[in-house]
Amino acid sequence: MNAPISRYPVPDLKDLPADIRERIVAVQEKAGFVPNVFLALAHRPAELRAFLAYHDALLLKEDSGLKDQAASGHGLTKGEREMIIVATSGANQCLYCVVAHGAILRVYEKKPLIADQVAVNHRKADITPRQRAMLDFALKVTRASHEVGDADFEALRAHGFSDEDIWDIAGITAFFGLSNRMANVMSLRPNDEFYLMGRVPREKGKA
Amino acid sequence: MNAPISRYPVPDLKDLPADIRERIVAVQEKAGFVPNVFLALAHRPAELRAFLAYHDALLLKEDSGLKDQAASGHGLTKGEREMIIVATSGANQCLYCVVAHGAILRVYEKKPLIADQVAVNHRKADITPRQRAMLDFALKVTRASHEVGDADFEALRAHGFSDEDIWDIAGITAFFGLSNRMANVMSLRPNDEFYLMGRVPREKGKA
Amino acid sequence: MNAPISRYPVPDLKDLPADIRERIVAVQEKAGFVPNVFLALAHRPAELRAFLAYHDALLLKEDSGLKDQAASGHGLTKGEREMIIVATSGANQCLYCVVAHGAILRVYEKKPLIADQVAVNHRKADITPRQRAMLDFALKVTRASHEVGDADFEALRAHGFSDEDIWDIAGITAFFGLSNRMANVMSLRPNDEFYLMGRVPREKGKA
Amino acid sequence: MNAPISRYPVPDLKDLPADIRERIVAVQEKAGFVPNVFLALAHRPAELRAFLAYHDALLLKEDSGLKDQAASGHGLTKGEREMIIVATSGANQCLYCVVAHGAILRVYEKKPLIADQVAVNHRKADITPRQRAMLDFALKVTRASHEVGDADFEALRAHGFSDEDIWDIAGITAFFGLSNRMANVMSLRPNDEFYLMGRVPREKGKA
Amino acid sequence: MNAPISRYPVPDLKDLPADIRERIVAVQEKAGFVPNVFLALAHRPAELRAFLAYHDALLLKEDSGLKDQAASGHGLTKGEREMIIVATSGANQCLYCVVAHGAILRVYEKKPLIADQVAVNHRKADITPRQRAMLDFALKVTRASHEVGDADFEALRAHGFSDEDIWDIAGITAFFGLSNRMANVMSLRPNDEFYLMGRVPREKGKA
Amino acid sequence: MNAPISRYPVPDLKDLPADIRERIVAVQEKAGFVPNVFLALAHRPAELRAFLAYHDALLLKEDSGLKDQAASGHGLTKGEREMIIVATSGANQCLYCVVAHGAILRVYEKKPLIADQVAVNHRKADITPRQRAMLDFALKVTRASHEVGDADFEALRAHGFSDEDIWDIAGITAFFGLSNRMANVMSLRPNDEFYLMGRVPREKGKA
Repeated sequence: MNAPISRYPVPDLKDLPADIRERIVAVQEKAGFVPNVFLALAHRPAELRAFLAYHDALLLKEDSGLKDQAASGHGLTKGEREMIIVATSGANQCLYCVVAHGAILRVYEKKPLIADQVAVNHRKADITPRQRAMLDFALKVTRASHEVGDADFEALRAHGFSDEDIWDIAGITAFFGLSNRMANVMSLRPNDEFYLMGRVPREKGKA
Repeated sequence: MNAPISRYPVPDLKDLPADIRERIVAVQEKAGFVPNVFLALAHRPAELRAFLAYHDALLLKEDSGLKDQAASGHGLTKGEREMIIVATSGANQCLYCVVAHGAILRVYEKKPLIADQVAVNHRKADITPRQRAMLDFALKVTRASHEVGDADFEALRAHGFSDEDIWDIAGITAFFGLSNRMANVMSLRPNDEFYLMGRVPREKGKA
Repeated sequence: MNAPISRYPVPDLKDLPADIRERIVAVQEKAGFVPNVFLALAHRPAELRAFLAYHDALLLKEDSGLKDQAASGHGLTKGEREMIIVATSGANQCLYCVVAHGAILRVYEKKPLIADQVAVNHRKADITPRQRAMLDFALKVTRASHEVGDADFEALRAHGFSDEDIWDIAGITAFFGLSNRMANVMSLRPNDEFYLMGRVPREKGKA
Repeated sequence: MNAPISRYPVPDLKDLPADIRERIVAVQEKAGFVPNVFLALAHRPAELRAFLAYHDALLLKEDSGLKDQAASGHGLTKGEREMIIVATSGANQCLYCVVAHGAILRVYEKKPLIADQVAVNHRKADITPRQRAMLDFALKVTRASHEVGDADFEALRAHGFSDEDIWDIAGITAFFGLSNRMANVMSLRPNDEFYLMGRVPREKGKA
Repeated sequence: MNAPISRYPVPDLKDLPADIRERIVAVQEKAGFVPNVFLALAHRPAELRAFLAYHDALLLKEDSGLKDQAASGHGLTKGEREMIIVATSGANQCLYCVVAHGAILRVYEKKPLIADQVAVNHRKADITPRQRAMLDFALKVTRASHEVGDADFEALRAHGFSDEDIWDIAGITAFFGLSNRMANVMSLRPNDEFYLMGRVPREKGKA
Repeated sequence: MNAPISRYPVPDLKDLPADIRERIVAVQEKAGFVPNVFLALAHRPAELRAFLAYHDALLLKEDSGLKDQAASGHGLTKGEREMIIVATSGANQCLYCVVAHGAILRVYEKKPLIADQVAVNHRKADITPRQRAMLDFALKVTRASHEVGDADFEALRAHGFSDEDIWDIAGITAFFGLSNRMANVMSLRPNDEFYLMGRVPREKGKA
């Protein structure tokens, strides 16, 4: 009755390469369901592997392997990273990312209202001035990255962001700009589960 | 004298993880120089690895590992893939990608004029109507992916593109949208070598 | 801790003129709380009275008093009217209207997912082609009413809309364009209750 | 020969409810003709009543009935209110409102050139810096009300506007944004009389 | 009291080169006053000479001197040329050109309402479908000339425009795009006389 | 095989009026070929004459004949004038002007990389802060000349530009805005020679 999860063929879990299947099963065990983006992108396993590697590099932030990397100290919280995703996906009008990452944002921040606020108009959200500046920059990267310059870096540094943090903001914005475009083209449908997640006191899933 | 290749620290080849160093050396041997994007992104090895994996999945198109993948038959030529990169990078005003991929486009197509044409206004370029439709779509994905719908798929199918080809167009557009944003934020400087490559009859490099 | 409900002074119920107080009390009894828009606009009672009269004329649609008024037959359902509000308020990035009318939309349509879909990108929503055309038009009225012309009327008539229905779509769009601007300027804060309303099976409030 | 005054049926005065007929007759006696907006909107008497009530609340500014309302002291002059209407209606490309309120603006300000100036480009108009700031804000509310914030309030206060004045500017802008959209959708035709009114020394009508 | 006619020094007639002085005197004798554009641009006589030569080539349309020039047969009327100027100057928000050429348009067409209609929204003007198509094209050339293509030529030919007529439309649009930009930068002030010209039955000036 | 140089008939040199033929021959002797713009615009000799006169007044800058003209002292270099043309033609997506004037820019500045930099994103070009400010202003004149005001003049004066220099920047921008629109409408094709000119050490042509 509802629209399919993607315009493109969606593979069965059992037909997928083992590494991908294992990753998906792990997510399923943690979340209680398989987010549709995994299945839809699994139509192209090589792209999905790269997608997940990029995602993990930006959002899980493990050791990069580079010796002299400047440790960014505090950096962005997990919740702040999701704010970036939700705000820029709202600007790109990507239903999947707003709904799915809105859910994760609510869970991480334990704030049931924040995702809708950030998606519709981050200027009216219950966030700090530092987070407001972070999202202002993310939206500029989304809409006019060619105009980014020294003044933008200064403005963020004034809020305590390191240059590595700024890379993170830009990287997350750029990566989800990719994700938004793919989701929009394939009409990726958010799982029904995401819509309610994190909105009611006791969320069984992530939290 | 000129601007540095990136706002961010650029690692020395010798300090890089072995896999990345090897990849870079291989490119250097083929092209005669190291494209700056490798060095600039190597500041974050995990991201660079994912970036290259995504790049290769879209532009080298090896077997994806998925059993029932629909073979796209003919698909996009290497030159057409570069046209997409140049046209969308022009729209995003990304100097690095227009210059570097403009060079590759000239080499692949053996047409010294085509990159400038596609970067400035693809409607005036010496390309086929099929390629024109391909770039019209790529620019729509760049600027308004939320408006992409069935009519866009129909228009491309009328030019002989399969749905897998359309995924390729969207994927290349989305991936270089990421690349454009990162390059713009870090002020990634194109190597001087790219500007002339493919413009004169005997190009030593790629061709 | 949270932002106030309006930049402007918010009157106490007891200080309000009797007619306004009665209206607000009636709403409170039905909904279980007083939507903030009533209190915030009550800072200017004469404007609030006109606002409510306009709202009721468009959304309650009682007899207009004009003898020869063409009865529009079927017309727009209550849910469709709320779709218009949510889609255009999303385009105008009005947090209050997206959240408050998103709640009402969910309740009317008994579809917990629909409000987020319509607010982010109505093209991806679980709605009929007729409703899609209705929202396409509403968004054109929102963004470029000066370009509305005969072709727009033809397109809507092809979906069975009467000219009176088209007036309704335009009127609701125009009225909430007013509402969006006022809410944005005064930073009108949605009541917390709206965010969850209509998302869980048994909604105590409206339904 | 000319276009009709509205796409929609226009009622005869005699068929209208008494209250509306009386209001229209009163306007006719004062102005010498019936502005078309009255007749066109009278197709929906309930909406017209609300429209007029809103109009009067903003433009006639009688006692609001709210006890502790902050008297705005000086506030906006009648001419300034019309400037807002003309500038924002120009931005929305609403022929009726530019022409009709342009006439009223000329009459109120006794300046035959001002309406054309404000409609085309208020930055070049013979107005004060305070009025320039007022129109800058009104145009921001017209085009990007979601971006309005504290800085806009500060800028206006620096010109002596009270917060109540700012509400007035926003309210007039928002209300005529509604009016512009309805007029554009119904192709509301300005009365010929408006075009010349206030342009020649002795204006018989309003002045 | 009013703003000066230009940000730049305005030469005295007597200090101007003879050819320019003669041209200006001739205009003055015909119109009854010297349009400010002559005096303001006379700050740079060589540019003014070229400006007038271009203007005359497009608007007076004398023999071009080219042997095989395709005679365009009927072509654009003088009034239609002024419509193009008024519509595109409205889009570029150039006060001088809207007011001055609005006056000429009224005089040529003997229609006192037409200039305001075309300046605010040509879709609502009392013009023919052919003229509507002409202005649609002129506005596309104004805003997005890079998107002009075969389909635009076809649409105009369907209304009986020859390719030479289309050049005329584009040429007038392009030339007044230049004029609009110069007038906006120098804050060129329209002569007071223009505002009323052609609005009242007996126009002494041009007609 | 390639597209023709213009949609419109292109006259033979021998059929052109003597003055135009002589000018073209002179250019040909200097450059080694006839730039297509001469032949394409020669379809309308009177317009071409005015075009060249305007071009020469702005770019050759001979004595204007006005007695009290303020000598601008230093003014813009020839290379800077070409930067303006390339940057604004890039914004207008005019292939001919970007390619032809990009060539001239490279030759004048003796910098083989500069034209591509300025055309794609002048913010990333190897230019001085003064030149950056000059191009920021030129792009504002291109896209929103109605918003130009005192603050723009102040910003340029702070970089040492005189008001006459500002006129030059605006004039060149406005004139090539005309040129861009005509070239786009007629699909003016750049000569193949331009693409390589100034990119290799020993340029035979202009330098």
